[in-house]
Amino acid sequence: MPHCYAELNPTERVLMGPGPSNVPPAVLQAMALPTIGHLDPEFVVIMDGIKAMLKEVMLTDNELTFPISATGSAGMEACLCNLIEPGDRCIIGINGVFGQRMADIAQRNGADVVRIEAPWGQPLDPDEIGQALNAGNIQLVAVVHGETSTGVLQPLEEIAQMAHEHNALFVVDAVTSLGGHPVRVDEWGIDACYSGTQKCLSIPPGLSPVTFSDRAVQALENRQTKVPNWYLDMTMVREYWGEARTYHHTAPVNTLYGFYEGLKLILEEGLENRWQRHKRNHQLLVAGLDELGLELLPAPEYRLWSLNAVKIPGGVDDLAVRKQLLERFNIEIGGGLGELKGRIWRVGLMGYSSTPNNVILFLEALRKVL
Amino acid sequence: MPHCYAELNPTERVLMGPGPSNVPPAVLQAMALPTIGHLDPEFVVIMDGIKAMLKEVMLTDNELTFPISATGSAGMEACLCNLIEPGDRCIIGINGVFGQRMADIAQRNGADVVRIEAPWGQPLDPDEIGQALNAGNIQLVAVVHGETSTGVLQPLEEIAQMAHEHNALFVVDAVTSLGGHPVRVDEWGIDACYSGTQKCLSIPPGLSPVTFSDRAVQALENRQTKVPNWYLDMTMVREYWGEARTYHHTAPVNTLYGFYEGLKLILEEGLENRWQRHKRNHQLLVAGLDELGLELLPAPEYRLWSLNAVKIPGGVDDLAVRKQLLERFNIEIGGGLGELKGRIWRVGLMGYSSTPNNVILFLEALRKVL
Repeated sequence: MPHCYAELNPTERVLMGPGPSNVPPAVLQAMALPTIGHLDPEFVVIMDGIKAMLKEVMLTDNELTFPISATGSAGMEACLCNLIEPGDRCIIGINGVFGQRMADIAQRNGADVVRIEAPWGQPLDPDEIGQALNAGNIQLVAVVHGETSTGVLQPLEEIAQMAHEHNALFVVDAVTSLGGHPVRVDEWGIDACYSGTQKCLSIPPGLSPVTFSDRAVQALENRQTKVPNWYLDMTMVREYWGEARTYHHTAPVNTLYGFYEGLKLILEEGLENRWQRHKRNHQLLVAGLDELGLELLPAPEYRLWSLNAVKIPGGVDDLAVRKQLLERFNIEIGGGLGELKGRIWRVGLMGYSSTPNNVILFLEALRKVL
Repeated sequence: MPHCYAELNPTERVLMGPGPSNVPPAVLQAMALPTIGHLDPEFVVIMDGIKAMLKEVMLTDNELTFPISATGSAGMEACLCNLIEPGDRCIIGINGVFGQRMADIAQRNGADVVRIEAPWGQPLDPDEIGQALNAGNIQLVAVVHGETSTGVLQPLEEIAQMAHEHNALFVVDAVTSLGGHPVRVDEWGIDACYSGTQKCLSIPPGLSPVTFSDRAVQALENRQTKVPNWYLDMTMVREYWGEARTYHHTAPVNTLYGFYEGLKLILEEGLENRWQRHKRNHQLLVAGLDELGLELLPAPEYRLWSLNAVKIPGGVDDLAVRKQLLERFNIEIGGGLGELKGRIWRVGLMGYSSTPNNVILFLEALRKVL
């Protein structure tokens, strides 16, 4: 007597939250291609294509550049658990949920965490990081480039330079920036960088692109202890993605088809064009919000183009507005997290979702709802 | 000057290796449905359907029953890292690669591992596990139900009973058995069980179904230390899959569509019918191999129906045979792992790949190649 389960029939949403963003049809179709073996010679060619394209998108020549077989947060964990050994002193920048998460993961991996904090909605102060570095014996500095919980874009170059002057590794969360903002891994001196697929890359969630510089690989190889996390142990995962093709785990074949196709579309558009598109649509949104009397949380010079943190006006019911946007217009936006719950809306203009028409549609829908 | 990357066009293989198995068209099509948000009310309904169907497939009423957002090996790690605390004494059964992997992961999580070994191709001896339990102070016993590296099916009930008599948790790897063999989680007294999607469930790789008994949940809640692995920390992941729907990570939405559809097909076929189909096709294969003068590694009473470990006859070139099967007939089978490399072929008859026609095709292709 099997129960009866409904047919899958998800509504086509306009995805303007903090991710996932809308996925181009070609990427969805790629997900449905016939599954082949994870060691099939044809799959090996696909893996090589993915690595080459990902290097272009991350603007890096790092050999260790490939997607982790789990979502963006696993990329965060992969970077930290491979590069931290128990007792290491690590500076973690915290001005939102994802900085907090990095501190939590670093601590679980035995790090002595030096917390450099800024109010949510503001960037970190590089001088404070510099002072903490001067206090000595820091092995790793980690910051979030695009804080998805606050809409803040963190400038990176100055921090990178200071970290290197003190021989510390520089780790960057580019989950909400990669594909929407410039993320210049090699030029800026980022040692480990991770992202997600479901934001500005517009690929379904399920993978986390990561890259490790030679310095990071050296640190990995010089570890005194085994990486505590088997699934994310880069000393093994890289053998599968490298020449040896040594079996580690069964790669998510169909999700990687989608990833391949998504990267291809990004390179066809061109990184520069894509960044400019994200910038233009962000500006269009900000101008429209201004007409509605609505303000963004971060100061203009620290705003993400991909994720707009909009202050909720006094007296407006956060949940009721989001519910109406979803039910009347099929538009998904996000609410605030943590201390910003009920205080901001998070309006994503990421990847395939970053279009002038989506901006117009959202502004008009919001006007009707308010 | 973007490079030119080839169009994706994977060949339709006959997948008869150790996984992935072939995926039914309806499951592939589900992967390509429009992505929606991981907290969308429609997605919550899909999650509830997945939990209900997975309970039916795992024959359990456990509330904590859902897929981990990573492949089968992450399910292994999830069970072990949540249930082991540093210093815990754990019995790990080792008669192949996946028992070795469990021991490795348990050690990385600080366990004092008691290794109970058997020759590869033979099952574990429950008496040896009983003796180790009698020696005292064991918190956890973990064994592999279907050893993918050797084709051995491990009887579980006696070990489960002994573990419980000594108040130890019983953890089972059902990666290669779930959906092809009976896996009676509640009836047999399994406390934590994990599987993969790409074997007898015939869903693309990318998820790992897990279930925890009330005893396992109690052990989780009584931990003195934080789970060292953030991504797999069940105290948090279960809040997303439970009533609270608390954001933890972005779920792999499209992969979960495929999972939903795949579970639906399994329940429509019926578990009993599906097990019998796997048994019949295994028997058909064994009879055909016998005619070719080929033998299986495990004794008849300990053979997996889903994964057949075939001894390679003397003088036959392992790689050349597999290459020809792939290139001339599009048939993928697996080679041996570890100490069985070059000594066995691993012929999978899993899920959608377990058909009489596949058996006939494989036997005839092998005859031509040999």
